[in-house]
Parts: sequence; structure tokens; C-alpha cells
Amino acid sequence: MVLATDLYQLTMMAAYLEFEMSEPATFELFVRRLPRHRAFLVSAGLEQCIQYLSELTFDGDDIDFLRAHEVFANISGRFFERLRAWKFSGNVAGIPEGVPFFPNEAILQIRAPLFEAQLIETYLLSTINYQVSVASKAARVAMAAGDRTCVDFGSRRAHGPQAGVYAARASYIGGMVATSNLLAGKLCGIPVTGTAAHAFTMACPSEDEAFRRYHAAFPDHTTLLIDTYDTLRGAVRATHISGELKGVRLDSGDLAQLSKEVRLILDAEGRDSTRIVASGDLNEYKIRALLDEGAKIDAFGVGTEMVTSKDHPALGGVYKLVSKQVAGVEQAAMKLSPGKATYPGIKQFWRERDDVGRCVRDVMQLASTGAPSPRATPLLVPIFERGECVYSLPDITATRARCQTEIASLPESLLTIEGFGEYPVEVGADVSELMVRLRAEVGE
Amino acid sequence: MVLATDLYQLTMMAAYLEFEMSEPATFELFVRRLPRHRAFLVSAGLEQCIQYLSELTFDGDDIDFLRAHEVFANISGRFFERLRAWKFSGNVAGIPEGVPFFPNEAILQIRAPLFEAQLIETYLLSTINYQVSVASKAARVAMAAGDRTCVDFGSRRAHGPQAGVYAARASYIGGMVATSNLLAGKLCGIPVTGTAAHAFTMACPSEDEAFRRYHAAFPDHTTLLIDTYDTLRGAVRATHISGELKGVRLDSGDLAQLSKEVRLILDAEGRDSTRIVASGDLNEYKIRALLDEGAKIDAFGVGTEMVTSKDHPALGGVYKLVSKQVAGVEQAAMKLSPGKATYPGIKQFWRERDDVGRCVRDVMQLASTGAPSPRATPLLVPIFERGECVYSLPDITATRARCQTEIASLPESLLTIEGFGEYPVEVGADVSELMVRLRAEVGE
Repeated sequence: MVLATDLYQLTMMAAYLEFEMSEPATFELFVRRLPRHRAFLVSAGLEQCIQYLSELTFDGDDIDFLRAHEVFANISGRFFERLRAWKFSGNVAGIPEGVPFFPNEAILQIRAPLFEAQLIETYLLSTINYQVSVASKAARVAMAAGDRTCVDFGSRRAHGPQAGVYAARASYIGGMVATSNLLAGKLCGIPVTGTAAHAFTMACPSEDEAFRRYHAAFPDHTTLLIDTYDTLRGAVRATHISGELKGVRLDSGDLAQLSKEVRLILDAEGRDSTRIVASGDLNEYKIRALLDEGAKIDAFGVGTEMVTSKDHPALGGVYKLVSKQVAGVEQAAMKLSPGKATYPGIKQFWRERDDVGRCVRDVMQLASTGAPSPRATPLLVPIFERGECVYSLPDITATRARCQTEIASLPESLLTIEGFGEYPVEVGADVSELMVRLRAEVGE
Repeated sequence: MVLATDLYQLTMMAAYLEFEMSEPATFELFVRRLPRHRAFLVSAGLEQCIQYLSELTFDGDDIDFLRAHEVFANISGRFFERLRAWKFSGNVAGIPEGVPFFPNEAILQIRAPLFEAQLIETYLLSTINYQVSVASKAARVAMAAGDRTCVDFGSRRAHGPQAGVYAARASYIGGMVATSNLLAGKLCGIPVTGTAAHAFTMACPSEDEAFRRYHAAFPDHTTLLIDTYDTLRGAVRATHISGELKGVRLDSGDLAQLSKEVRLILDAEGRDSTRIVASGDLNEYKIRALLDEGAKIDAFGVGTEMVTSKDHPALGGVYKLVSKQVAGVEQAAMKLSPGKATYPGIKQFWRERDDVGRCVRDVMQLASTGAPSPRATPLLVPIFERGECVYSLPDITATRARCQTEIASLPESLLTIEGFGEYPVEVGADVSELMVRLRAEVGE
């Protein structure tokens, strides 16, 4: 995966080497602003970033491919030899997965020679941007569903097979209880569940027979899809199977109304314990509306809108140079482009809580300044030191549990899917002073 | 990748085996309706589907993972033995990549035992849904840019590293001339180009020095990013480098106005051949607006909006049973759910052109009916026969060229990014009659 990056990262690396720009620099990966309709974001994707940085090397094929590109025609063999021997040697700090965060807070902070820090930008961004998008959307879906369960059903609409696995993972962290994606279960240890599909019903001689066969194969785990032909008739037919029926699924039509009618049909046949699962282009707003209408739905299968974060399909995470060492002296760096200015300096982000543990505010300060108050805890924790991973990655179920706890500790004004407040992230006096000084210097 | 599918595909497979439902069935993968703002879709992703079907097997690990899942507690060992020995044995037809298509036209048509056809649904959908989305969006971007060149810069905002590669591939087919993604270059044979980044400028002692160094390393391939501090000063500094300068890039601010001023600065210094590249959250509408404003831009770097197909980030491709064999007799199948009804039967999709080769209409007919007219050509071509690939995949550059030609042959009313007409896809009398008959039968 070392070539899963932009060409200009490699050209910049070659130029850095050519001009012996080998001193360390610090980059921060952060989001400039919250997408509309998001009160907070949820950290996710760190595990994949750790795997990537741990395993990253150039093999002979990769180097041959680069050498053959005309852009490197004037670059000496020294560059390619350097790539051949290379392994990530830097320090990384990061916000643990499942932790809510806000704009301008570094999700990852990389301290490494420019040569190395540049290479990894594209991969880290694509991994973090996507998983954060999905975890954040999933948190909203879970919030809307309250104590109903939600399951990821979105693999078929994710942006390719890998995105389906990462969506399962990120949405589990953000609040789903399971996924339908088997590979996500195998690779990431997420619970995998499922129902049945229209094709099965259509492949059988009749709907009655389809239900009987499916239940015979999976007597303890059958959730029947009942809307292939006529939903209410399907519900009646579902009650005909002998033995326990775990659930029925509705995937089309007026889900609120149908769920009430189906509930009556099931209850009339003593199927009180049979759960009603709903699916079909659901999102947090539709779930909220269904529950407001009194829908008798016990679980939601959520797909397309969550795995593509459809209302905000691209998180604008960026990776910016905030400090560099020049002749042994650390120099803070900032960009001044209109609307794209950055906060300079190597920072820490502190979260302050009140007596009952509820988050009150975050504070951005230079890392060298120290905690703004005794009760502030740092968001960034060490992940890599000198190229070695020093972070003990929690089990994904523990990460999911942490996410629930952390979200619950946010100000209540943020815990709504619409009309939420804004969480205060204060810029420390040290950072503000640094900005004034740098603007004066580079403004010329 | 065999587990990159939904659990219910495997449970259905187990039930099919249990009830000896081993006869062949036909599924079609299609889109029900065009996303708003799309006059047509572009076929893409077939290469990955072919790779997947060619290589698909269950290894011991996969089978152990499945066996351990509680849902399979009552399933006999025969099922797992069958998986161990399994290889795709079906027939596949498909629309070649780069060909425009319309709703209800099968992009892929799979004929295989239910057991096999079911398994592959999720992977095929996620691959086709995503690549078609991006190829179709890229076609619009290229249309807006006219004879200016457009390059994919979107990897960092794609939904994970694999999506970045697939976006590069699909957008190249749809009309980009290159990508910044090196892995896409290596794996898919797409031209890779790039410029420079803000980090390089910020890492150097000054902007002047950054430009000098980058140009020294890449004398024939330097496109300098000039907006790190002040764009017009950056443009002046770019003219200070000695030797040829291929291009400058603008990534922020009023691109139309800045490009005109930068053009004047470059021309005043005899840099007539230096091209101006623009980037920064571009899409087809912004490109059109820039050109309408007389922007002096020669090339566009397009990222986020294209690789996420941001205005329609999820294509609703579906995979539906259209026919099955029962006791040796073929039976057409259709779904009746409200808004989700399907066209039954094994179909062919015919494209009719006028005397100058311009597309006039498509016709959906049962495959057994034959061509609707002598000048109609079929969209579906053979891809697999009895599990063996029989399709000779064109080089991706040939596919891209075909895409250009095919799009140019669409009715002119479709070749606009706004206010386009609707292309006629006619439902053959044979299909209509079949629908009436089936509705009567299953409607009971």
C-alpha cells in the first residue's frame, strides 16, 4: 500500500532529499469545521493507520514503477536507494477511537523527518476522513433510535468492498450493534447478523414454502423478509411457521403503518416475542419520524445513508505542517491562504469536565505549555515513538463502549439530531500570540 | 474476498443446498432510476468483477469463521464441504466499461445455480455501484471542462485507500486524463501526474527558495503551487525561476479573477507556455462557471466532489432474480413491492443508431426474441461461460477512448450538465406481456 498516495508526495520527498531537508517536522491531521448537521465528530480509523505505518515499505516493484515515471528522470539513484531501505521512524500521537472531537483538534499528530511525514499524508487522510464520517453518522443514527438496536446493512452501497468493511467497523464504533458484512466480522471482530432477502422468497415455489424452508434451516435465528409480494399477507404467512420466529423484516412501503398492522397480526397469533426489523434507505431523521409516528419497530437495518454519510459524503480532513526544525531550532509554521489558515505550533488538546464528568470545554494549547487546569485531560495520546507502536489498541467492543460513554458525557445540548448547540474549543493565549507573531513575519 | 458479502447470502446458500434448490437462475444488476442531474450513467467496474469471479474460493480460515457463527448451528457439514470445493461456474454477460447506459438496463446479468449467484451479489453491487457513480460524475466534469484537461486529485477524500484507486480508474474511464494516485497508476495503468503542495513551500526557508528547489529537482515537470501566502506574489516569484516552467497551480480564492491576473503576470515575463492549473473543491458546475467568467485556466484538478460523487454519493444499483429454472422449466420472476417492482425474464438490451451513428433509442426485450431491428446492437456481451472468462478486457486507455466516442454519439440533448432530455428506453411487447401474466399469477 505504500504507493496508495499522491505522486507529489514522492516528488516532494525527492526534493527534500536533494536539498538535505532531513530535520523533523510536525504535521497535524484535523478538520477545519463541522459538517452542517453534526454537533461533533467521532474518532475512528486509528487501527488501520497503525497497521499502515507499522508495515510500510517499498518493494522492488514499487521502486521500479517510480523509476520508470518520467517525472523522476533527473532524480539520482540515491533517492531510490533511500526508499528501498526505508521504514517509518517517526512519532505519532492521536485521539483514541470512539472519542468525540471538534474542529481544529488534531486527530493525528505526526512528528517525523519531512521525507517520511510527507509520504503518509494521503493514506492517513483517506482512512481517517472516511471512518470518522461513518462513525459520526452512525452516532446520530443510534441517537435517533434510542434503545432500539441498529445494524449496518450498507455494504452493497459503500464505495467498494473495502469501504464496506470499514463502514461496518466505523459504524459499530459509532453505535451500531452489528453488521451484515462477514469480512468485517472476520477482520475486525464485529458481531455479524442478518435476515433473509427477496431473492430467497422468489426462488421458492411460494412465500409460505420460502418461510418454512428458511426456518427449517435456521430455527433459532430466522428473521423473515415479508414484503416480497404483499406485506400483510406475508406477516400472516410468517405466523404459519411452526416453532419460534425471531423476527420479521419490512423493507418497503409505509413502515410506520405497516409495522403497527404487522404487530397486531403477530400478537394475535401469540407471536409477542417476534421482533419487527425495518430497513429501506433509513437515516436518523426517518428513524426519528417513524418512532414519533408510533411505529412498532424493534430494530433498524441502516445502509446507504450511513455507509456513504450521504448528507456529508466527504469529510474535509486536512494534514498540515504546524512546526519544523531548522538548523536545530524549532519554528512554528502556518498557512495564510484565505479561508485555509491553520493554527501553528505543536499542540495538545485538553478536555475539561465538571464534577459529574460532563464535558465543559476543550482548550487548544501548545504542547509545551501544559494543562490549562488540574481537571483537564489530554485528547492526544502517544501512538508511535521512534517508529515503534507504543499504543495498546483496545478491543473494538471496548472502543464501542467507550464511544457510548464519551458521547453521553457531552453537553446535553449536543445530544440531539437537530438544532444542537456549539461546543466551545478555546484557542489558548499561547497559540494566539504565536499566530500574531507569525502573521507579522510572513506577511512581510 | 469471498467473505466480502452479507451474512444472509451465506444463510440463503445453506438453505438452497438443504432443499436441493440447485437449478440455475438468472439475476440482473441494474439501476432503477437515474440520479437527478444525470442524463446517463457510464459502465465501469467490470474489470474488478472479473477478477473477483475468477479468483473466488473459500479457504480454511473462511470456513472456520463461518462454522463458528451461531447462525449455522443447525447446518450440516455438507454445506461447508461444498464451500471448500467451490468455484464460480456460471455465465455472465455485461455492458463493456465506458459505455453509457440507462435505468433498468442490466449492467451485469448472472446465470448460475442459486447457491452461486447469491454469494456474489454484495461484492458485485459495491464494485459496480461505486465505479459507475464516479465514471458518470467524471463524464460530467469532463463535459463542463470541454477541451481543458481534468485530472483526478481526490484520493484523500475517497472512502478509504481502495476507493481512491477505484475512483482514479473510474474517473479516467469517464474522462479524466490522469490521476495523482500512484497505486492506480501501478495497478490500473493510468497516467499519473502531480504538482506540488503547500507543505513543501512551508518547509523551505522562503517561497522563492521553495520554487527554486522544486524546479531544480524537476526541471521539465514543475507545476508550482503559488497560493501558500499571497497568490499574485507567488505568481511573480514563480517567474523568477530560471528555465522552463510547466505550470502554476491555484488552490484557493477567486479562481476566475486570480487566473486572469496570474496569466498577465506570466505573460509579461514571457511565460506564455506556462499553464495555469486550478483546484479546490471543483465540480462540473464550478468549472462551467469559471469558464463562463473567462477564467484563464488550462487544467483542472478535481477531487472530493468527483471521487465521492458528492451530489449523489450512492448509486442504488440492485441485483434481482429475473428468471429461475424449476424442474427443468424456465420461469420468469418479478418482485411486486411498491416502488420496487422489477422487469421479469432474461433480457437483452438493444441500442439503435441513426445513419450517422447517433443513438436513437434502446429497447429492452427478452433475450430469446432477438434484435428489434437490423441496426440494433446488443449492450450485453458474454463475459463468463461456465465459469471461464471469455471476455477480452480492453486496455484502460482504449476503454477511455471508447467512452468518449460513445458519449459523443448520444443525442445532443443529453450532452449538457443541466436541463437535459430523457433518453428513450422502450420496454418490448414481450416483456410487457410477461409482466401482465406474472402479476395475474402471483397476485392470486
